[in-house]
This record gives sequence, structure tokens and C-alpha cells, in this order.
Amino acid sequence: MSIDSVDFFYLSMPKVEDIGDGSQDALVVRVTADGVEGWGECEASPLVSIAAFVTPMSHGACKPVRDVVLGKRIDSPADIAAMAAAVEMECMDLLQAAHTFSGIEMALWDVLGRKRNAPVYELLGYKKAYPKLPYASQLFGDTPAETLAGCRKARDAGYRAVKCGWGPFGRGSLKDDRDHLHAAREGIGKDGTLLIDAGQIFREDVEAAAQRIAHLEDVNTVWFEEPFLGGAYAAYGALAAKSGKVKLAGGEASHNFHMAQQLIDYGKVGFIQIDCGRIGGIGPAKRAADYAAQHGVTYVNHTFTSHLALCASLQPYAGLESHRICEYPFAPKSVAWDMSETHLTPDANGEVNVPAAPGLGVTMSAEGMRKYMVPVEISVKGKTLYKSPAI
Amino acid sequence: MSIDSVDFFYLSMPKVEDIGDGSQDALVVRVTADGVEGWGECEASPLVSIAAFVTPMSHGACKPVRDVVLGKRIDSPADIAAMAAAVEMECMDLLQAAHTFSGIEMALWDVLGRKRNAPVYELLGYKKAYPKLPYASQLFGDTPAETLAGCRKARDAGYRAVKCGWGPFGRGSLKDDRDHLHAAREGIGKDGTLLIDAGQIFREDVEAAAQRIAHLEDVNTVWFEEPFLGGAYAAYGALAAKSGKVKLAGGEASHNFHMAQQLIDYGKVGFIQIDCGRIGGIGPAKRAADYAAQHGVTYVNHTFTSHLALCASLQPYAGLESHRICEYPFAPKSVAWDMSETHLTPDANGEVNVPAAPGLGVTMSAEGMRKYMVPVEISVKGKTLYKSPAI
Repeated sequence: MSIDSVDFFYLSMPKVEDIGDGSQDALVVRVTADGVEGWGECEASPLVSIAAFVTPMSHGACKPVRDVVLGKRIDSPADIAAMAAAVEMECMDLLQAAHTFSGIEMALWDVLGRKRNAPVYELLGYKKAYPKLPYASQLFGDTPAETLAGCRKARDAGYRAVKCGWGPFGRGSLKDDRDHLHAAREGIGKDGTLLIDAGQIFREDVEAAAQRIAHLEDVNTVWFEEPFLGGAYAAYGALAAKSGKVKLAGGEASHNFHMAQQLIDYGKVGFIQIDCGRIGGIGPAKRAADYAAQHGVTYVNHTFTSHLALCASLQPYAGLESHRICEYPFAPKSVAWDMSETHLTPDANGEVNVPAAPGLGVTMSAEGMRKYMVPVEISVKGKTLYKSPAI
Repeated sequence: MSIDSVDFFYLSMPKVEDIGDGSQDALVVRVTADGVEGWGECEASPLVSIAAFVTPMSHGACKPVRDVVLGKRIDSPADIAAMAAAVEMECMDLLQAAHTFSGIEMALWDVLGRKRNAPVYELLGYKKAYPKLPYASQLFGDTPAETLAGCRKARDAGYRAVKCGWGPFGRGSLKDDRDHLHAAREGIGKDGTLLIDAGQIFREDVEAAAQRIAHLEDVNTVWFEEPFLGGAYAAYGALAAKSGKVKLAGGEASHNFHMAQQLIDYGKVGFIQIDCGRIGGIGPAKRAADYAAQHGVTYVNHTFTSHLALCASLQPYAGLESHRICEYPFAPKSVAWDMSETHLTPDANGEVNVPAAPGLGVTMSAEGMRKYMVPVEISVKGKTLYKSPAI
């Protein structure tokens, strides 16, 4: 097959709020190759990722992603890997290229899976997909009472694992943080899996983060996520040496395989969290999953958007039975829900199952997408470089 | 002062060729604060960096750079650092933000220097600026004879240091590479400083790169630049253990301080090459220079564009006397030359001197810029988000 078209659909809620909710907009990608249609999704900043697809070439190692993708062959996983390598070289100096290509790469796997009538996880070499335990991701409340209420709500909704993050954590006193942690534990109950996300609040201050460890241990926290800036591996490594039973987690910002590898090697995280919509797609995510498994680190998806992104993000570790936890969009905005007909609702055991269907196993909803379309037009030298397609 | 306006000027040659010449286009930034004007330049992909300035917010940690900059106070270096930290947090998920902010940050230093009537290197804490030895950067020829001719031309033009890179290197046989290396040495003469740039051609293949070491040593190569993908620190470290007298160089793609730090700590490079137009500007570049100096690593600018970018890129290590080499745009395209009235031509000793003038010490040329202006218009939901300003 050869790649005939790549179309971007920028979807958004009518109003985007200044809160840590990544489901407020989306950049959906449709790839067609010899009549087969595949879908993917880029994480974060739709307009900028579209611009990286169509931008004029700056020089030989700074080309628009379009030039590396359109018209190329796609007959096997090796073709996808070759295209990813070409993006790395020919778009070397185009920083946003990794985000743009991520959604395209997912769609290429979807195309290939549909063509071969096989789920993507099979193309990746897995014989079967194991169920995952979803965790409900939410912000800390403004007060411990709110945190308790939020966690209780998640538990009542059937979640056995809950993540609290951002909000006031790390911004007030140690006592405030402790009170929130105890409230979270009370909310999810004695047996719930509790995960804490610091949202990079301590930047590189190992001592400030280390002061929280005893309190995190007190409430039996499984992981302590992103205490520091994503690239501050030395700080992660220093904290990991002091964090006892609480393991560090991170990696969502990885925009290539090596960043994930380094957070494992140098940052000593116990959980590596990969967003397929940023790391360059499913191929490099699978490589990160393999690397994690070989090094005693648990792989987890990072997904705060749609069920298309969720289906894609589960593929790279679908066959790793002991890597159990998955991030699950707990209360997404309607745009993230309506765009697809397929939804991965937890089963009777409260577990999430990757569809045993061709490709990513997702049926998109043109009608659902149409409601949220954001028309974009980009012109350079008076010539239209990009105009949003209709769906 | 408060930041009143940030304007982008996208300049380009009429035709951009598919060659490794980074001087074919430019994104120049003008910042005004209380009537003081400062200038900076973002490296690579002007349209995408403009999009990152104006893009609609995706969520609280994915805001347009504009929202973090416009209207903010700028009275001291600490204000610039605070703004950089805010970009890191509030644009955390906007990959291109680092490139966009880099040019703005340079312009902020320029504003502050002009306001205080001091060169930027003084604001950075340096008492004086030492002259640098420029190297002429060029591509390997298609044949060894062409490589020889190119290097001889640079020597005849007065350059005591030459860098050859890209082209056929690493793509053919070991013998081909050896022939090119000997031709380069012959061209620059016995005493010239020879630098070799592999342009990431070996990706992660340590063995393939290691096979070149003996030949690099034979011709007395000072550094071996970017043998691998920018983020493949483990490969750099493995090669460094085998590279003998030839030191590794890299770091141009660093888009935050930590990437530079890690290439030093884990990649064991002997030269760290920083592009102020990518790493987030002059502040993080200065931090990289300090870190390099403390760890016995030599700092070098990466500059393949204009003399505005050159003046900015010399500031972070202007006061480090023993860090002697600087990259110098040897044969830039006219757009990169015409945009400024100021040019740093080598002095009688063949050395380059940072201007002892307020700010970055560069006078821009409105007339020169006007010839290369690329008008851009971006509209979202029918509303114009960006339209190129006139100059």
C-alpha cells in the first residue's frame, strides 16, 4: 500500500479551561492507504502539530513531516519503523515533529492491522492481550475534605485504583500535603491502589520532595509521579535512592525512546509512563515497554484524552501480563467521548480489555467529531498551506 | 519595564534547497518593553514556532507562549529566569515552546542590556569578553578532491579551524571516509584545527562509529561531532570510552539545560555545543557553560544562521577564556547576512570578538529584512490568530 492522504481533525470543547484536564481538545489523524483507513491521535497543541505537518522546509534536516510521509510504502511494521527513522533524520531540527508523527504512526498501525485483519498487539508480537486495572485520575481537592470526597466518588464508581495529583500538593506546608494524602487514602479505602502525581512541582529540589516520602509511605502509596521536571534525571535518581517502598513514576513527556530509557537508567523510576501520542507512536512505545520489562520496571500508559488514544496506548504492553495498571480517562470532556463509537468500559471485574479487533479496534464517529471541529487555515506567502478538511 | 509586544519576522531565501544549510531562513523576534527594543532569533521552522506563540490553549499546562510572556515584568535577569520557569510549567506539553521562547529570551536580554547600557555578558557576570577562534563549517565534498578544495578555500580565507560534516561521511566504505579525512587534513594544512561532524549518521551503532576512530586520530581530529542520534547518550558514552585522543562533541539539539547536562554526565562528550536559539535562550546556555566548565568540558556555540544569532550565542561563554573555539557562519545565505547591519568579521588575528556594546550589540536592518519577509496568516474558527507584521 502507499500512503495517499493524511488528514487532521482539530476538535475542541467550545471553551477550554485553565485546568490540568487534557481531554479538552484533540488532534485526530486519518490516514488512507490504498483505500484502507486508519486513525490516530496526537497529544497536545493541535494547531502546532498541524503546522509541523505543512511548514515550509527550513533546510535538509528540517522538513515538514508531510514530505517524509505522503506517498511512502506501508506494507509491514518495518516500513513504519523506516518512516519513523526518516522523520528522526529529515525532521531532526523540527522539535514538534515527534508529536505530529505520533498520531500518524498510530494510524499507520491501524491501517496495517485492518489490512491484515489482526489487532495491532498481534503485529507487535503479542499472542494475546491481558486485561488491565484502570486507575481513575483526578486532581487533589482544594481542601482535604474535597480530596476525600473525590476519592470516595471514584471508589463508589468501582475503581480499585485512584491517582491524585497537582492542585495544592507541594505548594503549601508539609502538614497540608500529609492531610491530603490521608484524606485520599480514607477516600479510596484500605485496599485501594493509591498513586500520587506531583506534577513536577519540586522542579529539581530533591530535599523538598524527599520530605514527602515518609507521609507517602504512611498511606501506602504505590508510586510518586513526576516530582521533578521531566528531564531532571539526576534529581529522580537521587530521590529514588531515598524513596524506600514508594517507587518513582514518570516519562509522559518522552518524545523519543531514549528519553524513556534514560529515565529508567539514570532516573531509576519503578514505573515508566508513556504517551503514544508524544513518544512517536506505538513503535517506540513498544521498544520502551520491552526495555522496561528487561529492567524490572513496570510500563504504564499515559492517556488523558479519548478512547482512540486509550486503545492505541494499551497496545504496546497489551501482552505484558504483570504490567497491570493502566491510566483511564475517568471523567473526560464530551469531545473525547463523542469522537468514537467504541468505548472501553471496564468489565465486571473492573478491568479494561483491549479490543480483539483489527487494527486499533476503534470505530470513529463522524457525527460526534463534527460537533467539535475547529476550522484552521494557514497561509504562507498568500498561498493556503493548510485548510481543515470536512468530515 | 513590562513587555508590550512580541513580533515575529519570518525571513527566507526565495527558494530553500534540500541541503544541510541552516542559513536559508530565519525567525527574528522583536520585543518591546517600555519603549526599549530588543532582538532575538529562534532556530528552525519559523512557521511552527509562530504557531506555538499563538496556538489556542489545550489545557493548563499547554498554553501558548504568548500567554506566559505578554505583559510580564522585565527588570532583572531574575525576571527572565522566572519567565523561563513559567514557560517550562505552563507550556509543559507544548513541545515547540522551547524553540519559540529561545528567540524571545534572547531579545529580553537585549532589552535589559540596552536599558542598563551594558553588554549581555556583563549581566551574566563576566567582567570581560575574550576573543574566540572561529571555525569554518562546511559539508564534505562528494569526492575527496572536493573535500580538499573546500578545506583549502577555508584556509586561504584565513581560517585556522575547519569543520567538515555530513555529505558522504559514514554512508560509504571505511576507505571512503579515510580518504575524505586525509583530504580534509591536506586542505587545511598541518597546523589547522580539524573538526569532523558525522551528522548522526550512525544512529546508535557504536561499532560502526568506533571503526572511524583510528582514521580520525591519524589526521589529528580535535572532535568527532554527533556520531549518534542526539538523545542516544549511552551510545555516546560507549564510544567515548574508545575514542582515545579524539573527543566527542554534541548537544546542538538540547532544548533545555538538562539535555546538555546529561550529554556531559552520561554521554561523556569533551565539547558541548549549544544553540541559544533552541535551548531556551541565553540563560540556560549560560547554565550549560558553567556546568561544562566545572566538569572539564569545553563549551562551544552552535550557530549556523545570522550574526544576530552569533552575537547572542557568544554571550554565555564570552568570559571563559580557555573555551576558545566558536562556530562561525562561513558562507551564509544572503538572508542571514542582510538582516543585520552589524557583522562580526574576524580581526587581524583571525579571531571573533563579541561587541562591547549594550545588549547583544547588534543593529538590525529593516531594509535588509524587508527583502526576505514571508507573510504568514493563521486563522482558527475564522478569526485571525496571527498575521505577519510589517517592518
